[in-house]
Amino acid sequence: MPRVLILSKSAGEYQTLVEAASLPRLEKLAVATDPSAAHALGDDFDVVFGEPSLIRKVLGHLPHLRWVQATWAGVEPLLAPSLRRDYLLTNARGVFGGLMSEYVFGYLLQHERRMFERFHAQQEGRWDASLTGTLRGKTLGLLGVGSIGSVLAATALHFGMGVRGYTRASESCPDVGAWYHGSRLLDFARSLDFLVSVLPNTKETRHLVDASLFAQLPAWAVFVNVGRGSVVDEPALVEALETGNLAAAVLDVFEQEPLPPAHPFWSTPNLLMTFHTSAPSFPADLAQLFIENYRRYAKGLSPLHVVDFKKGY
Amino acid sequence: MPRVLILSKSAGEYQTLVEAASLPRLEKLAVATDPSAAHALGDDFDVVFGEPSLIRKVLGHLPHLRWVQATWAGVEPLLAPSLRRDYLLTNARGVFGGLMSEYVFGYLLQHERRMFERFHAQQEGRWDASLTGTLRGKTLGLLGVGSIGSVLAATALHFGMGVRGYTRASESCPDVGAWYHGSRLLDFARSLDFLVSVLPNTKETRHLVDASLFAQLPAWAVFVNVGRGSVVDEPALVEALETGNLAAAVLDVFEQEPLPPAHPFWSTPNLLMTFHTSAPSFPADLAQLFIENYRRYAKGLSPLHVVDFKKGY
Repeated sequence: MPRVLILSKSAGEYQTLVEAASLPRLEKLAVATDPSAAHALGDDFDVVFGEPSLIRKVLGHLPHLRWVQATWAGVEPLLAPSLRRDYLLTNARGVFGGLMSEYVFGYLLQHERRMFERFHAQQEGRWDASLTGTLRGKTLGLLGVGSIGSVLAATALHFGMGVRGYTRASESCPDVGAWYHGSRLLDFARSLDFLVSVLPNTKETRHLVDASLFAQLPAWAVFVNVGRGSVVDEPALVEALETGNLAAAVLDVFEQEPLPPAHPFWSTPNLLMTFHTSAPSFPADLAQLFIENYRRYAKGLSPLHVVDFKKGY
Repeated sequence: MPRVLILSKSAGEYQTLVEAASLPRLEKLAVATDPSAAHALGDDFDVVFGEPSLIRKVLGHLPHLRWVQATWAGVEPLLAPSLRRDYLLTNARGVFGGLMSEYVFGYLLQHERRMFERFHAQQEGRWDASLTGTLRGKTLGLLGVGSIGSVLAATALHFGMGVRGYTRASESCPDVGAWYHGSRLLDFARSLDFLVSVLPNTKETRHLVDASLFAQLPAWAVFVNVGRGSVVDEPALVEALETGNLAAAVLDVFEQEPLPPAHPFWSTPNLLMTFHTSAPSFPADLAQLFIENYRRYAKGLSPLHVVDFKKGY
């Protein structure tokens, strides 16, 4: 008989959505928007659903904990070696792919269609009939091809692009035309038109995108990061953009967030930044994911999207 | 034994591409970049491939003309009632769908992701973590569902949108969820999130997009025109944008092109303009279309994509 704690800034919205689902066998449902409020609700919860950053602070106070469903794809706050790992941790997968795809291809199309330049012409009252580019026939390289990367690959295919994938080992996405692993990173990057990272923050991915990788890209290439900021050697990216060895970059994530006011990115040319907003967490999506996983859990089945604490995703 | 005239500003490129295809049964291939140069090449051509605006000026001098392949989708210059219609006119179809799709969805994504606003925040050094919108779950209405509209419908489906189609009579695209015809125009438009016109310039389409149509759209709706400018009642569009009854418009085509310097569009709020560049004509695409159609013609088959002079497309 599950006892569920919802610990989230959107706890009220989640409560409404979860209650509407009339979860089977539910013994207790309590909600809190911060860890101290959660402590006051008791310590008998076996299930927690919410933000990893908040859940981290209650981990030590829940002796019966068996399952945590994170509302995020990245679960770094729960991966510190000092923290317990004696429960099932599931993350948000299959939720963000479509949103990430909108973001990535929106910005790739913005680049090819030169939307900012066209608008500049419009503001000057200038009929600018110069040709624009196209995605068709270009090659996209995906650093990381999990549930998000697979949706990106499908969208690339829809737009007539070729797709390469770089992963630890998996080759599970049918829309990727060529696979690369391990030491073949530079081969993977060679002559890509677009390089997109969806990699998580792990020891292996730290500063994987560095000067040697940028050196493989043609001067017209565009780099997009929607994974984690730690994957990028940030000074190397500034250098590549300032020297014109890379045409543009679009970043949604950074090593330090919010980006410090003195960071060179604020004044780096041909860099577009958004602020960790590429895939907004819509409560309806995440509640649905939780509800589906809860039904499995209540039947004694393992929930889906279990994180491997060693791999970190 | 076909005698082919290529009459195009890109005649040299087309010549190279067509010659490389070693067309069967070809008796004569001549190229010109303007009508007066064409006249000097003789009057025995039965096939002309090129821009409708140029071909119009040689129509009266080609007694053996049997087939014209236009490099454009819209063939208005050849439709004037005073011009001969005793030949097969084929237009460029199946070429522009992917490019139009890049344009339309690029701008829809730009709107949902508020790219200009985000860039403004970046320029101000401001970490703007406010939520963005999404295409998923929204409804796209297509005015015109031919070869271009069908690609737009497929892309909309890929992004999780619903699609309505308004056509004269055809219901041939499987990705359209609901069809509307004739007098059901206002029902079609009611509550659409995005209205996209790919309609050609015909008597029936003139000013079809008017104040009564805009009145059916919610205040957050966006209108995109990649068809022909004559479809839009331009003062009604200015009014809808100025009063905030329409959130934004993106126009690639206009009643008069280039847009006159005094036109109110240059200062209309929430209007993004491009300059008849949504689907660039890449010679390689159009040469391929011509070559395929030529092979049919040389075998005595009818070429594909024949224009109905009465319908105008």
